[in-house]
Amino acid sequence: MRKPIVGVMGAGEEATQQDLSQALKLGELIARQGWILLSGGRSTGVMQEVNRGAKQVEGSLTIGILPQASAAVSEFVDVAIITDLGQARNNINVLSSHVVVACGAGGAGTASEIALAIKAKQPVILLGSDESSKTFFQRLSQDKIFIAETPEQVIQIILDNHLC
Amino acid sequence: MRKPIVGVMGAGEEATQQDLSQALKLGELIARQGWILLSGGRSTGVMQEVNRGAKQVEGSLTIGILPQASAAVSEFVDVAIITDLGQARNNINVLSSHVVVACGAGGAGTASEIALAIKAKQPVILLGSDESSKTFFQRLSQDKIFIAETPEQVIQIILDNHLC
Amino acid sequence: MRKPIVGVMGAGEEATQQDLSQALKLGELIARQGWILLSGGRSTGVMQEVNRGAKQVEGSLTIGILPQASAAVSEFVDVAIITDLGQARNNINVLSSHVVVACGAGGAGTASEIALAIKAKQPVILLGSDESSKTFFQRLSQDKIFIAETPEQVIQIILDNHLC
Amino acid sequence: MRKPIVGVMGAGEEATQQDLSQALKLGELIARQGWILLSGGRSTGVMQEVNRGAKQVEGSLTIGILPQASAAVSEFVDVAIITDLGQARNNINVLSSHVVVACGAGGAGTASEIALAIKAKQPVILLGSDESSKTFFQRLSQDKIFIAETPEQVIQIILDNHLC
Repeated sequence: MRKPIVGVMGAGEEATQQDLSQALKLGELIARQGWILLSGGRSTGVMQEVNRGAKQVEGSLTIGILPQASAAVSEFVDVAIITDLGQARNNINVLSSHVVVACGAGGAGTASEIALAIKAKQPVILLGSDESSKTFFQRLSQDKIFIAETPEQVIQIILDNHLC
Repeated sequence: MRKPIVGVMGAGEEATQQDLSQALKLGELIARQGWILLSGGRSTGVMQEVNRGAKQVEGSLTIGILPQASAAVSEFVDVAIITDLGQARNNINVLSSHVVVACGAGGAGTASEIALAIKAKQPVILLGSDESSKTFFQRLSQDKIFIAETPEQVIQIILDNHLC
Repeated sequence: MRKPIVGVMGAGEEATQQDLSQALKLGELIARQGWILLSGGRSTGVMQEVNRGAKQVEGSLTIGILPQASAAVSEFVDVAIITDLGQARNNINVLSSHVVVACGAGGAGTASEIALAIKAKQPVILLGSDESSKTFFQRLSQDKIFIAETPEQVIQIILDNHLC
Repeated sequence: MRKPIVGVMGAGEEATQQDLSQALKLGELIARQGWILLSGGRSTGVMQEVNRGAKQVEGSLTIGILPQASAAVSEFVDVAIITDLGQARNNINVLSSHVVVACGAGGAGTASEIALAIKAKQPVILLGSDESSKTFFQRLSQDKIFIAETPEQVIQIILDNHLC
């Protein structure tokens, strides 16, 4: 049986300090559950911190789906998948994950991933999101959008709803 | 000199009657300007009507970017580009257009296209959009999001802001 | 009814003088038939010359499927589709064409397009190809590979076999 | 430091008995080196057997890059990346691998992967290939194509040439 994959999306250079600290904790908690972490794989922002958190746990596995061969890969990514697809790779991120977590309000890239996940009928958890994002995405999907305020709540939502 | 390309995105099966009538008019107005119309190319919803509108104008040119080879192509599409990329083709739609128009509130597919357009720093016009969409996308981009209520306003915004 | 699309593939910077002159003539002959020309769209090699040839004919239509937004587009391309997919765009080229013509022996990019066309069960015409290419691709497909020595023969093969 | 990734490509339903037995052994030998195995991930042909071989080794890691969400995934794949890109995913396979091994003569899909690997200047090892393939691909690349007759030779070539 394949281990579940949790995809974590979020801002790169524009991530806030809270986004980063929540990403770090979230990565660790995902790894402690024995789940595989999937992200955009770059060495910045939410991507960097969530992978750093996961690699604090022995036996963790982190997958990075990179937009270009030239993108700097996080040193906490175990397997780097080089797509050379630019932002079209965002669809791979959400299709390959059993559940998608948007960490922080994010920017346009994260928004595209949430929208693509809803389009693909994948469950999405918004962690620490802003009001306009919650309102907008809950209009797009009544039953697949979950709201969390802490990394611990993300894990609880996944377990309670059998998303993995 | 290549003619400008205007990309029109919007709902398929879930389009409202107002979405459809605005799409029909918008297609005609784009074609009257001598601009090329680009869309998702399927024979349903906003895609079907905007192409129908454009083909009422002699000399018009309509391009459809299809998700799969098996997708039914609108009979009003002159050139069908078969991507077999699923929703990853949405990024091609926005990169290939000089300006992206979201016709109606749209669903998750349209939302992903608006987000990808903002990510690529392309101008986006929201036509007949709902409040939650306007609020959300204006948070993502202050200076590249334009609001229109009628197809005529879309054309005026493009001309006034030299978007084509 | 949509006009047929003929895809012409071939070397960029490494094209030989014979490749270039055959591409120029081929583009003209495709356009004279009223067919749409599709190519990789860059301003070099076979792509540049085949589009130049087509645009010598009034009413012709040329589509370029570009690998990146930064690629220099041939001035003889009427519609530039920006994929940002790198070489993954090669699959779009072959899926969108009713018949694929490989002009010259070509390099690895052209070889990938011929192979992808065979995989998709599209007809392929090898124009001015070398012996190792003919032998190799005829092993991969008995009934979908055609051999031509001149641009005029390409047109004749398309007409005789109703490939468009 | 990330572990090296070896990509193994080959026929699905059309694989010969020799292709299958070589794939099984090759997967085992790759895993014994501590390298990560990457493949097209489907539960058939070379893909199935190479993953089966790798999973006979404790601590092995197998990555499958699937063309569609609907494709049957090999039960020996640890991480399934769902691309929904059809054959465009072939470019991801070769870009993500440090070295590409074509196991058996293969069909058009494998040929496209070898060509894309050469285009991307990745090293390629042809294992148990036929003469027309060797001749053709050695014309496309003088210095990046290696020839092997056994799985053991593949490993030796990788080690001798520091391809991983």
